[in-house]
This record gives sequence, structure tokens and C-alpha cells, in this order.
Amino acid sequence: MNSKMQWLRNKLSSMNLQGMIVSNPVNIQYLTNIQAEGMLILTRKENIYITDGRYIEHVNKTLTIYDEITVYDVKDISLDDYENFFLFCENVGFEENYLTYAKYKEYIRKFKINNFVETEEIIEKQRTIKDAEEIRDIEEACKITRNCFEYISEFLKPGKTEKQIAMLIDDYYNKNAEGVAFDTIVASGENSSKPHAVPTDRKFTNQDIITIDMGCKYHGYCSDMTRTFFIGEPTEKQRRVYNLVQKNHDQTIDAIKEGANVKQLVKMVENDFKLNGYDLIHSLGHGVGLEIHEKPYLSSKVDSYLRDHMVVTVEPGIYIPGEFGVRIEDTVLVEKGMARIL
Amino acid sequence: MNSKMQWLRNKLSSMNLQGMIVSNPVNIQYLTNIQAEGMLILTRKENIYITDGRYIEHVNKTLTIYDEITVYDVKDISLDDYENFFLFCENVGFEENYLTYAKYKEYIRKFKINNFVETEEIIEKQRTIKDAEEIRDIEEACKITRNCFEYISEFLKPGKTEKQIAMLIDDYYNKNAEGVAFDTIVASGENSSKPHAVPTDRKFTNQDIITIDMGCKYHGYCSDMTRTFFIGEPTEKQRRVYNLVQKNHDQTIDAIKEGANVKQLVKMVENDFKLNGYDLIHSLGHGVGLEIHEKPYLSSKVDSYLRDHMVVTVEPGIYIPGEFGVRIEDTVLVEKGMARIL
Repeated sequence: MNSKMQWLRNKLSSMNLQGMIVSNPVNIQYLTNIQAEGMLILTRKENIYITDGRYIEHVNKTLTIYDEITVYDVKDISLDDYENFFLFCENVGFEENYLTYAKYKEYIRKFKINNFVETEEIIEKQRTIKDAEEIRDIEEACKITRNCFEYISEFLKPGKTEKQIAMLIDDYYNKNAEGVAFDTIVASGENSSKPHAVPTDRKFTNQDIITIDMGCKYHGYCSDMTRTFFIGEPTEKQRRVYNLVQKNHDQTIDAIKEGANVKQLVKMVENDFKLNGYDLIHSLGHGVGLEIHEKPYLSSKVDSYLRDHMVVTVEPGIYIPGEFGVRIEDTVLVEKGMARIL
Repeated sequence: MNSKMQWLRNKLSSMNLQGMIVSNPVNIQYLTNIQAEGMLILTRKENIYITDGRYIEHVNKTLTIYDEITVYDVKDISLDDYENFFLFCENVGFEENYLTYAKYKEYIRKFKINNFVETEEIIEKQRTIKDAEEIRDIEEACKITRNCFEYISEFLKPGKTEKQIAMLIDDYYNKNAEGVAFDTIVASGENSSKPHAVPTDRKFTNQDIITIDMGCKYHGYCSDMTRTFFIGEPTEKQRRVYNLVQKNHDQTIDAIKEGANVKQLVKMVENDFKLNGYDLIHSLGHGVGLEIHEKPYLSSKVDSYLRDHMVVTVEPGIYIPGEFGVRIEDTVLVEKGMARIL
């Protein structure tokens, strides 16, 4: 069995769960490399992946004997089979943050489950700690993103549009990576005051502010990076806001270390923004891995601590509606107790 | 209030529901045009959209006074507010196929809901019947897709790779539409035997089979179309399979009309395939709208009937593992009782 599946089996056993249904496709990808539609079932004796005709061939090519996962076509599974999977299982785990209410009810009925138990995101939590291979993949995705910023910087000239730049970025990622990790943001002028702006046909002017937020995928792992650029001279206000954001970006990265309290990191930025008359309107950052947004979330609502081999973004931003916005974002790895920018 | 929100209010009232929480973002987009992260709440008196700082500006720009929707920033809502939203509501609806088990429990607690009621996809069902504006948008998306097939057909030559063609398609959609509606499939040679193949660096040969499945978005609405091409002469077996798929594609479209039984449509294809020694391994088609796959599903497991102004794909396919596959797909509108290819 691969090391991640083995970890899950040990974890279930420590929680007195004799089985589990994994339905979150990202968790399934993490555990098995399978990217398809289906469900992973851990019974007392077996690991089973159930999918349909569209994916059978692909799934069989992805798995190796070493994975010890049996693949079933859903159309070959009888009602008796479903009832037998968890026979003699006292407790069976499920993903309460992924399974819908309708599926929850259906599975209890179909699998005849005695006690269907919430598992409190055990797999998502394990995913926050990256192994060496995962770190290599994220590092490569970040490197491609740095190169992409270099490549597009010469195109940031008056007359070019947001959409044109976004298209250059998407093409670059399609050629040099596995495409974008999320919808590329190119927001100029007053559009930059929207943190999640969609690229428009707005043309850059002689004196402009441009925020670009972009990332790609490499071996399934994401990168995420934002830079704010100026064409011509920034206004006094823009310069002040930019420096404030940059300062908080740097201070946060300096403060990130093994054991750092997430809430304190965020409060530090919130307070400094407030002293200057601004608010931090989105979270300070988030984990990055197979998903572009994953645990841990750097939010003042979360009581958690950073640990070695976590990968998080640091992305303070200030947005002044109708005027402009500034965001600066890097992806960092907690390593040997401190932060390393990837 | 816009006509779709008004429809939903009438529907809730007919179901003896005094309120509803809409959490499926596609349903929210359908009802309000809002594309953001948040939830739509229909109380006795008010329509409320709750989002966060990242989306407030965008949401306020999307809505008009005519929508009669009040927007709240989640951070301004107190515990008391949550408890007051559904005060004096006997029954409150929720989307059991979208809401997770964890959120289901959280909402009952937070909103102090007396009776939280499954709504059996009322909005998804309503979405199957397209209005004139929706049909125009889908028609335009289909037209762009036809033009894209014309544009790429000259590039289908020996030496070109699957990835190169997929990139041409994606570029075309980025320039002429709102990008792709789903990951473009370009599958050649034995790759074409996988219905959901991912484009590879495989080069087309002098005698090759290529399946291309692609679609774009226009005003949020999707198109979906598949063609199987041959470079050089198809083999006898390929010709036989192609003709069988084409025949079933045409027969299905001829049989589509207001009131047609979905199960019968599918059985007809399944039987003809079986007579020739093949299986229909995926559904015969699906609804198309704001989502690329939506109700109604053309599957032999579904007992439903087609109605005027439904838009569905017809996509029979035959896949021979390790050899090749053939799929032919069009998007059709049920109109004045019969099918019109869009």
C-alpha cells in the first residue's frame, strides 16, 4: 500500500473506525493519484475504488499493484455488494464537509451503515504537511510563475488591455505547465479595487496601476502569486498604500515560523492597516497544494499554529472602492522553523 | 423583483415554505446574475444576499433596484440577525443535493430553524426550461463552437499533436467567447478509446482517428459538441463503428420531441449497439445551460420526459479499449414539439 493510504488506515484504526467512505475527489487524488469521478471505500480488508465506464481504463492505468486498490464499475455492484462492504463494521467514517445531506442519507440506507461518523477533515489536515515530492512540485509551479511574470512584464504598456495580458498568461501556462490553477486576474485602474476582478477590455493608460494575480499547476500542484505594477509615476496616495502593503507582506513573512499563531499573524496586519485607516477585507493567506485554496487559512477567526512543511500564501491587500487596490502575494514554505519564499 | 425570483417565491408559497436558503452558486447565478461566493436567503419579507468583502463591490454592481435584493457583508451580521431571518417561519427549504452534512447541522443551529425541508431540486428543474434569452445565449455559444471546428479543421494534419490542437481551441474560445465550458478533449489513435481523455503530446499519424469534444461559454451559457475525424482512410472496423454511431445520433434526434420518454430514447440506442456487439458506456446526453452538465440527463436510469424549451446534448459513443473510439455529439433544443440542432 502506498504511504498515504497506509497513514489513513492507521489513523482510522486510532479513531476506532473500521471503514471510511472518501468522496472528496481531491482527497482521493492525494491518496491514490486517481483523477476521476468515483468514490474510495476503505473496508476492514480492502481498498475499493468505484467508478463508471468513462473512467475505468484511465483508473486502471493510474493504479499499480503496489497501491492495493480494487477497481469496480458501479454498474457491476449489486445491492448485496453494497450491504457487504461494511459488514461487521461498528463505525464508518465520512467527510461531513464534503458529503451532501442527500448522499449522507442515501449511503446510510444503501451501505446499511450502523454508525456513520464525521471525520473532521482528517485528510485535509494531513494534506497541510507536504512531503518532499509535493514541495518539489509546488516549487516548480512557483518557478514557472516567476518566469511568467518576467515574460509578461514587457507587455505592460499603455494601450494593452487586461484581457490581452490575461490571455498571454494563460497561453504561457498552457505551454509551460498544466494550465492555470485559477482564473487569472488582471485588474487595472479602478478595477484593481476589486480583489476578485475579472479581466476586461479596459486599456492601460499612461499612468496606471495594474494588479496581476496568477498561478499554474505542475504535477497537479498549484502556485499563487500577485504583483501590483505601475505605469508612469504612482500618485502619492498609491505610493503610501503600496509601501504599507509591502511592509506588512515582509513583516508577516519574517514572523512566520514553526509554531507561529495564525491569529496573531493576522491581527498584526489588521492593526497596522487600521492605524493607517484601512481594513484587511480578505484573509491574509491560505494553504496551497492540490487545491489553490486549502488548509491552513490565515484568518483571524482561526485558532491554529503553523508547522514545518506547511505551504501558505502571504497576501495582504488594500482596496479603495472606485479608486484602486494593491495586493502583494508570495507562496512560502515553513522549513526548518522559518519561512522560505518559493 | 425579476421574473425568476418571483417564480421561486410563488413556488415556495405553493410548497408551504416560508423561507429558503439557496447555496448552490449556479442556482444563485440563475436567479440573480451574481457570480460570487455567498448565500441567497429568502425570508418572509426580504431577499438577502450574504457575501464577504471580496465580492461586495462586484455584487452591488451586478444587482439593480429592480432585483429587490439586500446585500450584507457577512462580518456585519450578528448572531441575533441570524436568528431573526426566519423568525415565525414554520418551514424553511434547503438544497439537500448541494448543502453538506456539516453545513446542514450548522444552519439549523445558527438560524434557529424549526423545520429544515428538502426542496428536491426545484431550481435545477426550473433551469431545464430555457427562456428566450437563455436560448439565444446557448445558440450563440453553439455558433462559436461550429466556427471553431471550421477554424481548426485545417490543422488536423499528420505531425500535429493533441495538445497543440487543444491549445488552438482554447485560444479561439478565449478570443471569441468567455473561454472554454470544460476541459477540451483532443484524443487520437488509441487515446480516443477513453471518453474523457486528456490531450497528450501524441502526434497525429498518416492514418489516424481523432475525437474532439469541446464547448465554450457565452453570457455564462455553455455549448457542447463532439466530432470524430479521420486522417487518411478509416479501417473497415472504424467505418462500421462510425456509421453505427452516426445512425444512432441521427435516429435519436429524429425521435426527440415534446413528451418523448428519456428511458426509451436511451434503450433504443443501447439495443442497437448491443445488436452489433457494443455497449453504450456513458449516458446518451445531458442538459446544457449555465452548467455544461445539468438536468435532464438522458440515461436509462431516469424516468422523465422531454419538454419544450429543454436543451440537451445527443452524444452516442462506442469505445474499444486499446483500439479506438467514436463519439458524435450535438446540442439540440426541443422546440415546437421537435428537436432543432443548435
